[in-house]
Amino acid sequence: MGPITTTLWIGTAIMVLGLLAFLALMVKAPAANRSFFSATSLVALIAATSYFAMATGHGSVLIGGRVFFFARYIDWVFTTPLLLLDLALLAVPSITARAGTVATLIGADVYMIITGLIAGSINDPTKYIWFASSTIAFVVVLYILLVQLFGDARNRGGSVGRLFGNLSLLTLILWVCYPIVWLLGVEGFRVLPLTAEVVIFALLDVVAKIGFGFILLTSSVISGR
Amino acid sequence: MGPITTTLWIGTAIMVLGLLAFLALMVKAPAANRSFFSATSLVALIAATSYFAMATGHGSVLIGGRVFFFARYIDWVFTTPLLLLDLALLAVPSITARAGTVATLIGADVYMIITGLIAGSINDPTKYIWFASSTIAFVVVLYILLVQLFGDARNRGGSVGRLFGNLSLLTLILWVCYPIVWLLGVEGFRVLPLTAEVVIFALLDVVAKIGFGFILLTSSVISGR
Amino acid sequence: MGPITTTLWIGTAIMVLGLLAFLALMVKAPAANRSFFSATSLVALIAATSYFAMATGHGSVLIGGRVFFFARYIDWVFTTPLLLLDLALLAVPSITARAGTVATLIGADVYMIITGLIAGSINDPTKYIWFASSTIAFVVVLYILLVQLFGDARNRGGSVGRLFGNLSLLTLILWVCYPIVWLLGVEGFRVLPLTAEVVIFALLDVVAKIGFGFILLTSSVISGR
Ligand SMILES: CC1=C(/C=C/C(C)=C/C=C/C(C)=C/C=O)C(C)(C)CCC1
Ligand SMILES: CC1=C(/C=C/C(C)=C/C=C/C(C)=C/C=O)C(C)(C)CCC1
Ligand SMILES: CC1=C(/C=C/C(C)=C/C=C/C(C)=C/C=O)C(C)(C)CCC1
Repeated sequence: MGPITTTLWIGTAIMVLGLLAFLALMVKAPAANRSFFSATSLVALIAATSYFAMATGHGSVLIGGRVFFFARYIDWVFTTPLLLLDLALLAVPSITARAGTVATLIGADVYMIITGLIAGSINDPTKYIWFASSTIAFVVVLYILLVQLFGDARNRGGSVGRLFGNLSLLTLILWVCYPIVWLLGVEGFRVLPLTAEVVIFALLDVVAKIGFGFILLTSSVISGR
Repeated sequence: MGPITTTLWIGTAIMVLGLLAFLALMVKAPAANRSFFSATSLVALIAATSYFAMATGHGSVLIGGRVFFFARYIDWVFTTPLLLLDLALLAVPSITARAGTVATLIGADVYMIITGLIAGSINDPTKYIWFASSTIAFVVVLYILLVQLFGDARNRGGSVGRLFGNLSLLTLILWVCYPIVWLLGVEGFRVLPLTAEVVIFALLDVVAKIGFGFILLTSSVISGR
Repeated sequence: MGPITTTLWIGTAIMVLGLLAFLALMVKAPAANRSFFSATSLVALIAATSYFAMATGHGSVLIGGRVFFFARYIDWVFTTPLLLLDLALLAVPSITARAGTVATLIGADVYMIITGLIAGSINDPTKYIWFASSTIAFVVVLYILLVQLFGDARNRGGSVGRLFGNLSLLTLILWVCYPIVWLLGVEGFRVLPLTAEVVIFALLDVVAKIGFGFILLTSSVISGR
């Protein structure tokens, strides 16, 4: 078993442990905050499934001699909207009051992942136009998050505003790494070998999903303690 | 035309007849209950489409020498949430009041079908891990249905509680057969030949969709008579 | 670069310009009407993406020697619901008050596009049964639009009723052309050569998306001026 497979199995294990931890935390949580626990547990479940698929060889294909892990994109197309939903639920008391903003946020995010999937799956220079389209959508996501929703979160007062500030900063730092790693990795300029890319993506995924989840779900705002 | 194709054509015909019957029942129904008729008609329409695709050879592929009817999973991924929605609409006066529960119910159900599709489409022993993941999600679906929603339905009083009790019992009995038939059939241990599997799935589909629909839509609670 | 590729690049350019124009109009719009601008901009964005994919050769496959532009259907499955949503938002003050009608409208529309995709991707005579199923769903879409939602729009009084009347008439005329062109084109009876089909679809797409968008977003009802 090479280092790539080992990494993918470790990723699977961490996602499963994260899922179990989130479910355990849910039991003691106030009923009104259940949605945060369900959404974050679903993120861990989907990631565990995707890592398992990649570890067993069912999450990748060969495209022009290069290994392409399509399972990541199936993971991301569901989990990134769920993570954004966590942040939106935190920022605004009722999601329906900001239905337009949240719909635009999720729409831009899904567009980002789908165009990223196309960029990753083709091998001619047009891939960088797909990459650029995906990145524009990413900027829209960050704008809505850091400007519009941050404003809403601050209006909800001290501890919610602070928690949102921390989580959106963490999100900003981690999420920005994804297109960079992609560009340096085998989908882009091939500066990073595949093994390094798989390891870095695994670290990012663990912090962006499980680390993020722990900060959110153990915060006094959400855990009610 | 072999017995499999004949079965699939009969399935198509029954689903079309069921669809027409549900639409006819809708005309006389109280406007407030229209959603039950739309959702259940859509179930019959999707099933008719899927059976037609399978009968004409466009709903299956060969995987390692075995016939795999992928069209079933496209059918199920839409129809099982719609059937669960029927039950949820019956149990709770306003779906938004139980948005979290209903989202978890539908999420677990979709996860069950997608992991079932992966289990069915691969040929190495990891398929049983996919089967197990799908089954865990199935248990979550049954738990939400038989414990949480059943509780809500009972609180809505006599006739609604009784109707929900009957329909959820029928759902329990029929739905449990699906993984068993799958496991005994060509996707699993190959105890059942393909013809038997196709016939049993057709019988289950007809009762779980058209039979279920008739009980629901002709009940006095829903038909208003 | 042949006439087909040229047409597809022109289509891409017009969709991008339309997108930029819609975004510019959004800036000055009343906040309450933002949803119309977001939805219509998303239509232009998706179309630009789809035309770009087709122009660069990533939006089509060869099926039995015939070029099949599958990217159209991915475009349509997202953009036709968004265009219908624009019309529904115009006709009814609150979409949730007509949730059942809107769900049936969108459901029938998605069914129309998916069965149309199947019709277009197969090469035996059963394709005409898929075409017929798609057309029945199309009739349901038109019925809900021209009868049910038109009634609601008229009840909202003079200028809304007139705008809805104009837009739904435009929609009726343009949308009816799609199945006709399809039937005369290479997917159907091959009366039209591929070049003619691509040009006509491009014209229809530009008017149904960008023309429609301009009429809607510059109307006094929506622009607030
Ligand atoms: C902009 C951009 C990308 C962005 C990806 C992001 C932002 C992924 C985030 C994933 C997370 C947070 C996963 C799990 O927790 C791609 C698709 C790599 C490549 C194309 C350009
Ligand atoms: C648990 C499990 C399954 C369950 C399927 C079910 C429960 C299907 C229900 C279908 C219905 C009710 C259709 C239509 O009316 C599979 C996917 C067979 C295989 C993997 C394990
Ligand atoms: C009925 C029917 C069709 C209808 C398509 C329509 C109505 C498309 C509308 C597209 C628009 C309006 C796009 C963008 O603005 C198909 C799929 C061609 C073929 C099968 C039968």
